[in-house]
Amino acid sequence: MSVDFAAILQAKQRIAPYIHTTPVMQARTLNELCQAQLFFKCENLQKIGAFKFRGAMNALLCLTAEQRALGVATHSSGNHAAALAYAAKLLGIPAYIVMPGNAPQAKRNAVCSYGGKITGCNPTMEAREQTLQQVVARTSAQFIPPYDHADIIAGQGTAALELLEQVPELNMIIAPVGGGGLISGTAIVCNAQAAQIKAIAAEPQLANDAYLSFHQGVRQKPNASLTMADGLRTGLGELNFHLIRQFVDDVLLCSEQAIKQAMLLIWQRLKLIVEPSAAVPLAVILENAEIFKQQKVGIILSGGNLDLDKIIA
Amino acid sequence: MSVDFAAILQAKQRIAPYIHTTPVMQARTLNELCQAQLFFKCENLQKIGAFKFRGAMNALLCLTAEQRALGVATHSSGNHAAALAYAAKLLGIPAYIVMPGNAPQAKRNAVCSYGGKITGCNPTMEAREQTLQQVVARTSAQFIPPYDHADIIAGQGTAALELLEQVPELNMIIAPVGGGGLISGTAIVCNAQAAQIKAIAAEPQLANDAYLSFHQGVRQKPNASLTMADGLRTGLGELNFHLIRQFVDDVLLCSEQAIKQAMLLIWQRLKLIVEPSAAVPLAVILENAEIFKQQKVGIILSGGNLDLDKIIA
Repeated sequence: MSVDFAAILQAKQRIAPYIHTTPVMQARTLNELCQAQLFFKCENLQKIGAFKFRGAMNALLCLTAEQRALGVATHSSGNHAAALAYAAKLLGIPAYIVMPGNAPQAKRNAVCSYGGKITGCNPTMEAREQTLQQVVARTSAQFIPPYDHADIIAGQGTAALELLEQVPELNMIIAPVGGGGLISGTAIVCNAQAAQIKAIAAEPQLANDAYLSFHQGVRQKPNASLTMADGLRTGLGELNFHLIRQFVDDVLLCSEQAIKQAMLLIWQRLKLIVEPSAAVPLAVILENAEIFKQQKVGIILSGGNLDLDKIIA
Repeated sequence: MSVDFAAILQAKQRIAPYIHTTPVMQARTLNELCQAQLFFKCENLQKIGAFKFRGAMNALLCLTAEQRALGVATHSSGNHAAALAYAAKLLGIPAYIVMPGNAPQAKRNAVCSYGGKITGCNPTMEAREQTLQQVVARTSAQFIPPYDHADIIAGQGTAALELLEQVPELNMIIAPVGGGGLISGTAIVCNAQAAQIKAIAAEPQLANDAYLSFHQGVRQKPNASLTMADGLRTGLGELNFHLIRQFVDDVLLCSEQAIKQAMLLIWQRLKLIVEPSAAVPLAVILENAEIFKQQKVGIILSGGNLDLDKIIA
């Protein structure tokens, strides 16, 4: 099961009645700082506060009536859980979410408020997968993985498609890479344009498995990453790896210090709340200025969900 | 020198080439929480990050060529200083800004980056006014006060005018009151509509001089306020007082706790950075729920400038 540009075009039509067409914002001071024209695609303003809603919605709309009746399941401590629960609610489908006991309270609350049925588990990948198998065995629900899935990737690709309709003159698009759902969809879209547009993956140095995989040609396991960009700690998916090798032009890294600086700049200059993962592309631009100089760069602000209560004194 | 609806219509045309038409945002969860339809007018996304740019731009465009050549002056530690400096820069006018020594560094930097000429002074109102007089005597620059001025009020009123074009079905508009520039312009616009729209002023309990002035019919002095809504610590202007008595339907108060809660809700749910003053209208709605229930309420998010460096650990 693979995914191509046609699948992304179909996904766009399919999810159109359910998603927000998110705005594109600019800030004069950031353009001056980077000596480039930066266009920020505000997926932090997407439903559930992240692009993940696009993929989840597309995946659910691709299910058969029989599959929908039985419901969907996933394990996640992050935005995919909220996206799946909310998409399922809109379609009247049961959603079974396996969440580790250490998942942030804000994320648990979001899943609950969308009517997701939470099953707790220990905070290891083994426990998550094992608990998910039990839930699926009990309910016959369809497992919807967070990124290593053609329908998910096709849905995530619609963000770049929409961005290029809004700003056709872009030379490149940069998006963060964790599991690789967003960047592989983005890269397919960039590659399909008449005048090909560069697709750049942005990754924290502390979670550089996509960087290593891309340059070595062999998919690398994730390290036990402590990057502040918590959405990008996950390892690269198999399908995602192959799409990235085929369509992404480069994977660039950034430091933790640059992520923090970029997040603050976006908060201060765009007046937008973004989570650390969403600041990684701007962090990469700050630390690789020559590559982006004088370019028209689309930046996907992937999400805006973080525990603000803990940040504000 | 007074100000009427015609002056606001003229101001809108005059400043149109210079300002952003700011978006209106909504959040399902906030509507559910308040049992009302809330429409947030994002003046935090206005140039310099606050509605103040509208009034400053209008006031400068109303000057004669002779006045422009001599430049403009004001004393301010806040958004008016940045607004005046940036508006002056766009028109090639010198701007002399008297700032107290304790003004936030971020605000000083903003004024400097717009080419404003800063004169320092002690942090008392007497020192500010005295220093300003010296600057005006030396330069013959035109003093542009922050709110007690017809051209400023007419400019600020354009935010409500724009909001009503974007959402014509509103029943009421609520805006914060400090010196009274924004709310008096807003109230004139609401009153001029065919089906009159209620204009509500929102004020912190800790800075309740507008509330007392409105209800007692005599302009009250500001108390030495410690409200976290630093933009609203200032006292009500004379012209503003009379316009508020004439056109505002009510002045409602809120607690400091509600301001903090409202600011967090806007950050979390709208993904927008707003300063504490801009959260005061939502705080008033949270603490006066019955008045706003089932209403279609326009909320002016007045600004988004605060020292985020100090908030993020």
